[in-house]
Amino acid sequence: MSTSDPTGLGFSTIRWEGDAAGTAILIDQTLLPRELRELRIRDIEAMRDAIVRLAVRGAPAIGIAAGYGFILGMRDRMPRDADGWWVRVREVKERLASSRPTAVNLFHALDRMAETAARVAGEPPARRLEILLAEALAIHREDAELCERIGRHGAALIRDGDGILTHCNAGALATGGIGTALAVIYAARRQGKRVRVWADETRPLWQGARLTAWELARAGIDVTVLCDGAAAGLIASGKVALIVTGADRIAMNGDTANKVGTYGVAALAGIHGVPFAIAAPTTTFDPMTANGASIPIEDRAGDEVTAPLGIRIAPDGVAAWNPAFDVTPAHLISAFITEDGIVRPPYDRTIPALLRARRPA
Amino acid sequence: MSTSDPTGLGFSTIRWEGDAAGTAILIDQTLLPRELRELRIRDIEAMRDAIVRLAVRGAPAIGIAAGYGFILGMRDRMPRDADGWWVRVREVKERLASSRPTAVNLFHALDRMAETAARVAGEPPARRLEILLAEALAIHREDAELCERIGRHGAALIRDGDGILTHCNAGALATGGIGTALAVIYAARRQGKRVRVWADETRPLWQGARLTAWELARAGIDVTVLCDGAAAGLIASGKVALIVTGADRIAMNGDTANKVGTYGVAALAGIHGVPFAIAAPTTTFDPMTANGASIPIEDRAGDEVTAPLGIRIAPDGVAAWNPAFDVTPAHLISAFITEDGIVRPPYDRTIPALLRARRPA
Repeated sequence: MSTSDPTGLGFSTIRWEGDAAGTAILIDQTLLPRELRELRIRDIEAMRDAIVRLAVRGAPAIGIAAGYGFILGMRDRMPRDADGWWVRVREVKERLASSRPTAVNLFHALDRMAETAARVAGEPPARRLEILLAEALAIHREDAELCERIGRHGAALIRDGDGILTHCNAGALATGGIGTALAVIYAARRQGKRVRVWADETRPLWQGARLTAWELARAGIDVTVLCDGAAAGLIASGKVALIVTGADRIAMNGDTANKVGTYGVAALAGIHGVPFAIAAPTTTFDPMTANGASIPIEDRAGDEVTAPLGIRIAPDGVAAWNPAFDVTPAHLISAFITEDGIVRPPYDRTIPALLRARRPA
Repeated sequence: MSTSDPTGLGFSTIRWEGDAAGTAILIDQTLLPRELRELRIRDIEAMRDAIVRLAVRGAPAIGIAAGYGFILGMRDRMPRDADGWWVRVREVKERLASSRPTAVNLFHALDRMAETAARVAGEPPARRLEILLAEALAIHREDAELCERIGRHGAALIRDGDGILTHCNAGALATGGIGTALAVIYAARRQGKRVRVWADETRPLWQGARLTAWELARAGIDVTVLCDGAAAGLIASGKVALIVTGADRIAMNGDTANKVGTYGVAALAGIHGVPFAIAAPTTTFDPMTANGASIPIEDRAGDEVTAPLGIRIAPDGVAAWNPAFDVTPAHLISAFITEDGIVRPPYDRTIPALLRARRPA
């Protein structure tokens, strides 16, 4: 796999250029679809900032960004002695971990990088960075492979001619490969199935209207944008055969945190008997999280709601509530599409079985 | 009642100034909350345009605007002979009726004005316009009275300290009085009850963030704006004791068309056992509409979705689906709050009884 175009879609969401002295390069997604501009990132604070302000977003892509950010953080201030190394590992890990609280992939990637850092503490400094880079590239490459496998498994759920609704962006722009929810669509398309995709615009940051519409249209897939509030009527209309979204964290009972608005879509799917699937790598399942009630939900600044596109629409002084995610209870989820296959209820049995069988990373 | 401040809220959504040679004046709601600017309207096409582009919106306010617009239309080209009068009545009625298809109040008001026009056909031209103006003012005054009565009945559903969620704007800005859904809140407030209001922003045109937040904040009521997609999580959180919205048309079985997004909110209310009420005058019930399937739903231009605030966010060429309304099935509606009291299921019995008992207009 090349990290410069791992998807065959003609762009790379995030990549590393050069050796361990090199540069992380990522598409500034805040500018899409108006402008396809890449950020060249050479220090940890710039990477943290890119994550915080959603220049890079999507749980798997955040994990990859954290891997590259880890190298940058260690390289920025390479400690001379062993004690300094450990202190710096902890600093770097905490600095990146505090960027966004909900996506579990971020913490997985940081754990892997920290474990690698522990393993290489005895090596010469340059060698340490080489090994860390190899690990970060492995995280990226593995994610791209997971996307392909998720797509292959999920494509079986799609019939020729299906209407498919998705929320937010769980596509190539959210991962190191062809996405999770959108991987299913790309894979169905490769099999020659015709699909019509409905993309919730996904307020407040319009990842559906901006990003999902951008990458699907670029791939020649028929996509129609709608307001989040219109999804209920769309589902009731019978035009949607399948709903598929990504996930930021999945609890062991199947409760799933994903972009705010997902729960409402899933609830309507339940009412109208439309299958609602979550596409995500098995790393999104969090063995430390028993159920949705214990998933921390990031509260973001109110002006994302009250001042869209930087233009204040609400009266001055009026407050906004702006949770980035919501939790969809497991009973509304028809299936999880993972790299290891499709997981169905009863989740209290099938999810632990999935994780026990998971291939070693 | 004065039409210059019928609400005591310090503004008038729509009013008539002067005699039959006078002017309709309405707040250009497309500019709120940034700017409180009034439009002075002296011909039918300007009134039709104001309705089409939502400078005046909300089913009851559209009805009032149609009444005033009818006078302007007859005055513009006052026919000399009886035949010409009938032709012009039909032209004016059709011109205004074609402005927006969903709100039944529009058609009620036009029917009333056309009937009045029929009655006065034998009068001298100036006298005809005087009588038409009296009718239009009566439509307006009656609406303000209905709002007061809706508020009084609905306030009984609110307890001190309640959290209340609303969608779109069914307030003073949507009516000739203190609103329908928001009348309930204003009336509860007058009774000394403290409330916290959650206002769905209401994409694509942000009537919640712009208009509901504006008039509630102006009235000193605690209001918090949220994205439409966040409402499901809010309802699940238990912070909402009552949901109340307006309606654009209510079928005889209780199915209700209202701003797109209402159905999703009602569905979540049903799941979480939160009462979901529709506040609307009895004129919103349409005896000609048996159920929701036969309510025409206005499809609006896609660029309201893809180019919010005039700024294109979706990629060029990507389509949007932009229905202005959706239909909430009757079984999700706990109660209708009308000027004649609160109507509860079984609606197939209680709605016909309500309309039979309706006071003559």
